Amino acid sequence: MITITAFKWVPPFAQGQVRDLRVRWALEELGLPYQVERLGFSESKKPPHRARQPFGQVPTLEEDGESLFESGAILLHLAGKGPGLLPADPAARRRAITWLFAALNTIEPPLADLAEVDFFIEDETLKALRRPAVLEQVRLRLGELQDALGGRDWLAGEFSVADLMMSTVLRIAGHTDVLAEFPALTAFKARCEARPAFQTALAGQLADFDAEPPAWWAKPSQPG
Amino acid sequence: MITITAFKWVPPFAQGQVRDLRVRWALEELGLPYQVERLGFSESKKPPHRARQPFGQVPTLEEDGESLFESGAILLHLAGKGPGLLPADPAARRRAITWLFAALNTIEPPLADLAEVDFFIEDETLKALRRPAVLEQVRLRLGELQDALGGRDWLAGEFSVADLMMSTVLRIAGHTDVLAEFPALTAFKARCEARPAFQTALAGQLADFDAEPPAWWAKPSQPG
Repeated sequence: MITITAFKWVPPFAQGQVRDLRVRWALEELGLPYQVERLGFSESKKPPHRARQPFGQVPTLEEDGESLFESGAILLHLAGKGPGLLPADPAARRRAITWLFAALNTIEPPLADLAEVDFFIEDETLKALRRPAVLEQVRLRLGELQDALGGRDWLAGEFSVADLMMSTVLRIAGHTDVLAEFPALTAFKARCEARPAFQTALAGQLADFDAEPPAWWAKPSQPG
Repeated sequence: MITITAFKWVPPFAQGQVRDLRVRWALEELGLPYQVERLGFSESKKPPHRARQPFGQVPTLEEDGESLFESGAILLHLAGKGPGLLPADPAARRRAITWLFAALNTIEPPLADLAEVDFFIEDETLKALRRPAVLEQVRLRLGELQDALGGRDWLAGEFSVADLMMSTVLRIAGHTDVLAEFPALTAFKARCEARPAFQTALAGQLADFDAEPPAWWAKPSQPG
């Protein structure tokens, strides 16, 4: 049985964003059974979890005593387990893997910067000075991505881990209206999220969070 | 014949950093011949190059009419061409691919933030407010990486694309002293860079830059 890790609770703005969503979605696309090991935040930073995830993050994937981390690596590994997550044609397969990396290394960084500014930077002067350049970089990359997608439904021929990863990356900007400036990307994300496997994965992540915040969480007014 | 793209010229602080270094290195490790197509910066942002690289970046790799981009995807593709860049054992191979993604998605973002602060942010107030948190995040990740490496020579059993990628990512902090705080990472980077294939790749990138800056480059005092 495959075991993945997820958090017991995250603040509302991060619910539906945590990266185990990507792994759940891939597993649902493949129809593979899995169980979820839920971790408290402090638990995720301690030696037992660090032995499988050196950075104290989620998700991990464990199977037959072997443990993997990094959502990109896990998706690529799962894609080898059956059809549906990578094209069979070698060239299309390479194209899909290219877009998997592009999602993580070209599109995610500016979107993560935007989330950092909006949710984690508390100094109002820093926030105000930094946000315009971050938003400009987000718009640049989203415009280029939209141009690259063109009129196609999927990034590499058929639905693949490239689309799965890219659409979850686009969710990072979900607290803003910026994606609405790019109609083809908005439609692409909706097309991805309409997949039953995504719906099941998202519902699964949300259902696995504790209903009440842990005791250490005492901030009265959090975004989201 | 494999063709890769590189820049005709970049500012001194970026020479030896541009990502075609990663691809040159992998090709040198494999002993595969390749030619380099050099692009001006404005040329890299125009339609012919964008058709193969939607974000107007380098490197790309072309072979037999097929074009790939994203250094991570190119490295993974090249690793399939022969022994030397990924372990033969399937579990060790998955481990190496995990670390390839970790280099790009967990270690590179904070290091890229540090380079952004030091080379690209011009507002002195923003720079001063942002740098401490960025440096703290860099130290956090480098400490975790050093702990994960432990006393081993390589990230996944034997030298692989994981080490190649991680060591080029560590180069991003080369304008600072931060890596010296992590002796095992300093030794790891030196071990990687002592490889003849790295030396040849680096010399190749540096030799391919024009000796004189282009006309549009007129800043009198640039870092580096």
